[in-house]
Amino acid sequence: MKQKIKIAIAGYGNLGRGVELSVSKNPDMSLVGVFSRRDPKSVETIFPDTKVYLVDDILEFKDKIDVLILCGGSKDDLPVQGPEFSANFNIVDSFDTHAKIPEYFDSVDKPSKANNKVALIANGWDPGMFSINRLYGEALLPVGETYTFWGKGLSQGHSDAIRRVQGVKAGVQYTLPSEEAIQKVRSGTRPTLSTKEKHKRECFVVLEDGADAKRVESEIKTMPNYFEPYETTVNFISQKELDENHNKMPHGGFVIRSGSTSQKNNQVIEYSLNLESNPEFTASVLVAYARATFRLSQKEDFGAKTAFDVAPGLLSIKSAHELRAELL
Amino acid sequence: MKQKIKIAIAGYGNLGRGVELSVSKNPDMSLVGVFSRRDPKSVETIFPDTKVYLVDDILEFKDKIDVLILCGGSKDDLPVQGPEFSANFNIVDSFDTHAKIPEYFDSVDKPSKANNKVALIANGWDPGMFSINRLYGEALLPVGETYTFWGKGLSQGHSDAIRRVQGVKAGVQYTLPSEEAIQKVRSGTRPTLSTKEKHKRECFVVLEDGADAKRVESEIKTMPNYFEPYETTVNFISQKELDENHNKMPHGGFVIRSGSTSQKNNQVIEYSLNLESNPEFTASVLVAYARATFRLSQKEDFGAKTAFDVAPGLLSIKSAHELRAELL
Repeated sequence: MKQKIKIAIAGYGNLGRGVELSVSKNPDMSLVGVFSRRDPKSVETIFPDTKVYLVDDILEFKDKIDVLILCGGSKDDLPVQGPEFSANFNIVDSFDTHAKIPEYFDSVDKPSKANNKVALIANGWDPGMFSINRLYGEALLPVGETYTFWGKGLSQGHSDAIRRVQGVKAGVQYTLPSEEAIQKVRSGTRPTLSTKEKHKRECFVVLEDGADAKRVESEIKTMPNYFEPYETTVNFISQKELDENHNKMPHGGFVIRSGSTSQKNNQVIEYSLNLESNPEFTASVLVAYARATFRLSQKEDFGAKTAFDVAPGLLSIKSAHELRAELL
Repeated sequence: MKQKIKIAIAGYGNLGRGVELSVSKNPDMSLVGVFSRRDPKSVETIFPDTKVYLVDDILEFKDKIDVLILCGGSKDDLPVQGPEFSANFNIVDSFDTHAKIPEYFDSVDKPSKANNKVALIANGWDPGMFSINRLYGEALLPVGETYTFWGKGLSQGHSDAIRRVQGVKAGVQYTLPSEEAIQKVRSGTRPTLSTKEKHKRECFVVLEDGADAKRVESEIKTMPNYFEPYETTVNFISQKELDENHNKMPHGGFVIRSGSTSQKNNQVIEYSLNLESNPEFTASVLVAYARATFRLSQKEDFGAKTAFDVAPGLLSIKSAHELRAELL
C-alpha cells in the first residue's frame, strides 16, 4: 500500500467542512486535521475523530502535511494566508476575486518557488472548472463566442440585500439563468447578451407581522444594481416553508461555446453544473487538485499554478495506464 | 512576430479537409501542405494555394514540419503510419478503436521517445474531449456514476447496413440519445442503463422503384445487433429530400457525471456537444492539440501522450498570463 497523501484544512466554515467530507471519499488520502483560529475544543467536526488544532501551531506540522487546503475567504483571509502558508506548505485555494487573480498569483509564486512548494490557486468551479471550459471552448473553436450563465444558485449578497429591506423578517434570493437566452445560444446564433439579459432573480421572503407586502415587493424590485436591472419575482412564504424548502446552498450554471468551423457548419460545446451544495462541490474540486498538487511537488514543478497548468490525468486516483484503458 | 507552428496533413479525406480549414483559423499556425497517396495533381484542396505532395516524399520534409497530423483511418492506416511517422515527426492523430488504444499507445511510444518526438494519439471528441470529461467527472465526484450518450449523430456503419437491404436505393441512419434516459440521469437518480436503453435509431430511406416499403421497414427493424435491440423508426423520403436535408455529418452527445458529496447533496456535471460537422470538429480538436504537441516537444517532454497528459493552458494561443487575466 502506497503512503496516503496527507491533507490538512486551514479554516473551518462550509468549505472546510466540504473538504473534510471529500477527503473521506478519496481512499488515497488521509486528513491530518483542521487548523482553526477558534478554540479547538469549540469546533465541532463532521467526523468525531477529525483532529482540530490552533492555526497558530501549524508550523509544527510542516513535515506532516503534504498539501494544505486553504478554506478562508478571498477578501480578508487568503491575501494574507496565501503568501504566508505557501512558503511552508504546498497549498490549494479557491481565491475567487476574478479581477485580482493575477496579483494574487504573483504574491504566492515567489514564496512557493523560493521554498520548493506548489501553490495551486483560484480553483473550484468559477474560477476553476468553468474557466477550463472557457479555455477549451475558445482553443477548439477559435471563431466563436463564449457565454457563461450562472444559476440556479443561491446568492449570498442578494439575500443579504433583501433582508435589509424594512418589513422583511427573512429571505433568500436565487439567480436563475434565462431559459430564452440559453436557447438562443444553444441554437447556434451568437447573440450579444448582457449579464442582465442572461439572468433573472427570484426572491423568497418571510414578512414581519403587519408588514406591507406591496411596499416590500416594490422596494426589492426597484433596488438599484441588485434588482432593478433584472426581471425579478418576489414570493412571500412562511418561516416554516423557508426553513424546509430553502435550507440548501444550490448553485451551478452553464459555459457555452458556439463557433463555426466553416461557412456552413456551426458547433456548440456546453458544460453545465447542477449543484445541490455549492461549498461541497467546490471542496471536491479542491481535494482532487490537492492530489495533482502533491504530484507536481513530487515532479519538482514548483511555484504558483492554476487549473490551466494541470493535466487532467494528474487529478485521478488511477494510473496513466488505467486511465487509457478505462476512460479514453 | 514569432515563427508560426508548421503543420502538415497526412491523408486527405473529410478529416484532412477539416484540418486544412482549422489551420486557417489559427493565426499562429501555417500549413506546409497535404501529403496524400493519390497523385497530387488529382487532389482538390479547399484553398487553392494549399500544396499537395506524395506521402512517399514526406521524409524530405523532416525539418520543415513541426507537427504532422495523421488523418487516416484507425483500422488500416494509423496502425502502420503511427509507429512509422512518430520516428520522424511530432504527430497528432484520432485513433479511435477504444479497445486497442493501450496497444497502439505502446507502438508509438517507443519510436517517438527514441527519436525525441511527441506522439499525441487518440484525440478528437470520443476519444478526446469526452474522455477528459469522464476523467474530470470521476475525479471530482468519486462517489457516483458516469453516463455517455451519443447523438444526434450520423452513423456510417448503420447507414451502410440500411443500404444493403434489398429495395433500398439510398439512406442514412441517425443515432439519437433517449430523452427519457437523459432526464432520468440529470435528475440525480443513478439508473442502470444499457447502451440500447440510452439510444434510439432513426432511418431515412429512399426506396427503389416498386420496392415494398413494409418489407423494407420490417427487414431494417429486425436486423440483429444493428437495429433489433433498439427502438427504431424508419422514414421513407424522396432522393431530393435526402440530398437536401441529409447531406451533413452531424454528431455529438453527452457525458454526465452524477455523484454525491454527502448523504443529502447530489451534484450533476454535464458536458455536451452539438456538432453540425463531426469531421470538422474532430479536426479542430486535433489542431488545438497540435499546438500543445509543439510546446511539449519544445519542453523536451517526448514520447506518446493522450489528452489526459496535456494541461489545458497548452492548447491556447494566449500566454499563461493572458489566460489568468482573461479566462480564469
